[in-house]
Amino acid sequence: MAEKLKIISLGGLNEIGKNLTVYEFGGDILIVDCGMGFPDDDMYGIDVVIPDVSYLVKNRSRIRAIALTHGHEDHIGALPYVLKEINAPIYATRLTAGLVKIKLDEHSLTDKTKIITMEAGETFRAGRFMVEFIHVNHSIADAVALAIHTPIGTVVHTGDFKIDPTPISGEITDLARFGNLGKEGVLALLCDSTNVEKPGYTTSESKVGESFDNLFRGCDQRIIVTTFASNVHRIQQVINTAARYGRKVGITGRSMENVMKVATELGYMVIPPNTLMEMSRLKGMPKDKVVIITTGSQGETMSALYRMAFSGHKQVEIGAGDRVIISASAIPGNEKTVSRVIDELFRKGAEVIYDRLSDLHVSGHACKEELKIIHALTKPKYFMPVHGEQRHLKIHAALAQQMGMPRENIVIADVGQVVELSAKSAKINGTVPCGNVLVDGYGVGDVGSVVLRDRKHLAQDGMIVVVINLSSEDGSLISGPDIITRGFIYVKESEKLMEELRGVVLSVLNGCRDSGVSDWATIKGNVKNELSSYLYKTTKRNPMILPVIMSI
Amino acid sequence: MAEKLKIISLGGLNEIGKNLTVYEFGGDILIVDCGMGFPDDDMYGIDVVIPDVSYLVKNRSRIRAIALTHGHEDHIGALPYVLKEINAPIYATRLTAGLVKIKLDEHSLTDKTKIITMEAGETFRAGRFMVEFIHVNHSIADAVALAIHTPIGTVVHTGDFKIDPTPISGEITDLARFGNLGKEGVLALLCDSTNVEKPGYTTSESKVGESFDNLFRGCDQRIIVTTFASNVHRIQQVINTAARYGRKVGITGRSMENVMKVATELGYMVIPPNTLMEMSRLKGMPKDKVVIITTGSQGETMSALYRMAFSGHKQVEIGAGDRVIISASAIPGNEKTVSRVIDELFRKGAEVIYDRLSDLHVSGHACKEELKIIHALTKPKYFMPVHGEQRHLKIHAALAQQMGMPRENIVIADVGQVVELSAKSAKINGTVPCGNVLVDGYGVGDVGSVVLRDRKHLAQDGMIVVVINLSSEDGSLISGPDIITRGFIYVKESEKLMEELRGVVLSVLNGCRDSGVSDWATIKGNVKNELSSYLYKTTKRNPMILPVIMSI
Repeated sequence: MAEKLKIISLGGLNEIGKNLTVYEFGGDILIVDCGMGFPDDDMYGIDVVIPDVSYLVKNRSRIRAIALTHGHEDHIGALPYVLKEINAPIYATRLTAGLVKIKLDEHSLTDKTKIITMEAGETFRAGRFMVEFIHVNHSIADAVALAIHTPIGTVVHTGDFKIDPTPISGEITDLARFGNLGKEGVLALLCDSTNVEKPGYTTSESKVGESFDNLFRGCDQRIIVTTFASNVHRIQQVINTAARYGRKVGITGRSMENVMKVATELGYMVIPPNTLMEMSRLKGMPKDKVVIITTGSQGETMSALYRMAFSGHKQVEIGAGDRVIISASAIPGNEKTVSRVIDELFRKGAEVIYDRLSDLHVSGHACKEELKIIHALTKPKYFMPVHGEQRHLKIHAALAQQMGMPRENIVIADVGQVVELSAKSAKINGTVPCGNVLVDGYGVGDVGSVVLRDRKHLAQDGMIVVVINLSSEDGSLISGPDIITRGFIYVKESEKLMEELRGVVLSVLNGCRDSGVSDWATIKGNVKNELSSYLYKTTKRNPMILPVIMSI
Repeated sequence: MAEKLKIISLGGLNEIGKNLTVYEFGGDILIVDCGMGFPDDDMYGIDVVIPDVSYLVKNRSRIRAIALTHGHEDHIGALPYVLKEINAPIYATRLTAGLVKIKLDEHSLTDKTKIITMEAGETFRAGRFMVEFIHVNHSIADAVALAIHTPIGTVVHTGDFKIDPTPISGEITDLARFGNLGKEGVLALLCDSTNVEKPGYTTSESKVGESFDNLFRGCDQRIIVTTFASNVHRIQQVINTAARYGRKVGITGRSMENVMKVATELGYMVIPPNTLMEMSRLKGMPKDKVVIITTGSQGETMSALYRMAFSGHKQVEIGAGDRVIISASAIPGNEKTVSRVIDELFRKGAEVIYDRLSDLHVSGHACKEELKIIHALTKPKYFMPVHGEQRHLKIHAALAQQMGMPRENIVIADVGQVVELSAKSAKINGTVPCGNVLVDGYGVGDVGSVVLRDRKHLAQDGMIVVVINLSSEDGSLISGPDIITRGFIYVKESEKLMEELRGVVLSVLNGCRDSGVSDWATIKGNVKNELSSYLYKTTKRNPMILPVIMSI
């Protein structure tokens, strides 16, 4: 029986972000992307989420390569963590490689990691895989799709992409290559589903440039622009427009400075002579001669724009005479933080121009019609929608069906499921360990469901600690009960309630003595139950209750 | 010197919701609306937010009336709490009154509260105020704007409104009356700013009916529709469409049932004969003969739709053969919860139709062009933008200026500020107490910034309780340190860390003994500091640390 190709997503299915796909054929493993995700609202205190890669660790020896489609965090962000557990050569385009190097340096992983830079159009071998890089447009430069050639056929893995006929630099997505692959025959297509809900086509990046021009022309204010640090082309457009109107450009915000540095060094950004200026030197300049490019488009509390708005920025103070341009849209979940910054900027007297008011941002992901083009060109035998929540995957599957693909040739999988492909069949066959590994401070994976449940409980109603000192001879009460609360109620204004709670505890203790109960576990349990039901009755709240018994 | 009119917003400025405006002239106080707000993301455990009305309590005796513009929670939700502290007759249209009665019954305030129902067009006297009700369109029936006539002039208070030429029942917003008031002369306009960011006109409610018709026609699935329970006209349209296609309608979700009951009793909803059916009886019906109207358009975890999606609903189980129509858009902050429900419905195999895919919801608030119409008709001397965050107020002010109003005649106020109006001047003069009163369970106002700060701290990194037993004679350690953690880390996997922490505490205790420190406050302080710096160094986390010292 012929060997089968296995495709396993350890992230990126039924979620946005955390993209990591494993390809397996005849003993060889190819990893595509290694991204991080952002914590849900109820993951209190968690910094980032990375995929559970225990399956890869277990099969360490069979990993031949890691191929990266582009340099966004949701495709490379987990590398520093994963590379501590596995090791394999990384293949990426130059900009992607440059961004990865920054990460590896921060985690001092540079020496032990081999990075091979590739150009779109080139191919590398990884065991029995031949992996071809195909140029695509996206909201970061140097993005590629992959054609993964295997002995049983070719899989097209789009990564994140859009089709932009007028990109800022370079070419439109290499539709010719997608078309030729289709003619040669494509076994399966794994395609980005992020924008499948949106009809029509994604607007070209150039369109944003026109908005910038309108906002710079004849403007006598200082201009402050924020966008995603990784959007090299967007930043290039701001700089070009600034140069056109004789403005000097200052850069603020760590990630913005990092990306600028890499992008310029590698030639992905072209800075017109004496356009850039040190932030410190901008102060002296007339307002209509200045543009500041800053981080903070998502309202992040540590970002430069946030600090400007709330007067925490060393060099920049916002006020009347400032025009702030927010060239981004809020990522779902960030709407409120973004609004908070916008409102504060207005309060400071600045003019704020944001997406609801003008055409200042375009998506980097293909909409319905663009997706149809890729399906039509590649003519895959099997289709697996990726990069999306359940609704995206289902809607993308429906799109494929409308284009004539039989339902049974479409695989909607979940993370951890093993999709088994042969020339004649595609089916889900078994699962591997998968899930979210939570990063909190230096801790990777040491915070799990129990800890999170406790954090949520504490967040809701706070906690009450009850300390009791019992005699080791006869178990009689020596001192206490002392009651300490945090996050529950103003104690000063609740002395009466505290007194009642002490009463409840005392009666529990007496009850235990009378009924001869002496083991601490039972006593603690009773204290907990009595207190919590009393509290719910009187306050309708349910704080965490922590009975502490000591004895001498 | 002539008497002045004072306008004080205790809510609704620099925030969405919690609307309460105080009008003061001579000795008389008129209250307009009494709404609640929703807690911010960082108000852990808080159920609702209501305005601080201590100013009203202090001036209880001068309150002549409470006028309500419509029955939405952000305009009537705080009544049950506020009416426990003040008492005044409530003037409202019939539907608004009906919804208020439900609340008052729940809080057994019905007997002690006088409610006078009014028709649009009628006027009532409250001290030296003559208050006129003016019909407006909104996303709830029976909404009104107010013309508040005072000896020094008339103030137009729009409340929430839109201009809908084809409403589902009744008339278009009474532009004639607004125009006549303008001709008679309007001293000041207080106008809804919610949609001032949006250009053009808000779509008519009728448009949604067309979408319903398209989705019902020829559909052989069971249809489940969710929308805001208070949107009587929307629900009416669902029922009409159901009747047109011979479907029986079941209602589920407490608030939906409540509103339906009131609206039908008062004749705001007309149910075609034998269209409604008990949920229990719907089970037997063929799918293409059934429509279920349910709560849950915001993905609320207790709502009927949520329970259907996650298989927790008694009568309804979602699956293939169900078409779920979400006729609402996510209120900012609810995006993720709504998506979660949509994804789960897809997972269950249902077809889900939501705003991103179709024209299923229209706003109840006026967009830019509609606002201009009101400004142009009323021709106010002074203008005060209300119902909005800072950005909305500023953009609305700019709109008024573009229409020719002098900047100095526009007052952008904040909650608690006293806006003083005479025939010749409008200025901010002083402030009164104001702010958020947080409701948590039965507690009203007993949770404040300290408690919230602690909850946030606990949510981020959990807590560590350190219990020490010291001898009362020589302060020597009798037992402990015992270390208990919650929401911090998996203890089982962190025995080593726990051991280290005990070591840190012991060395602190020894240090105190050696240096003769014996007062508990100092000892506790040192334990706290040493532990937290040790923890930050080793884990980069900052749990709450609670040292407990006992002594015998």
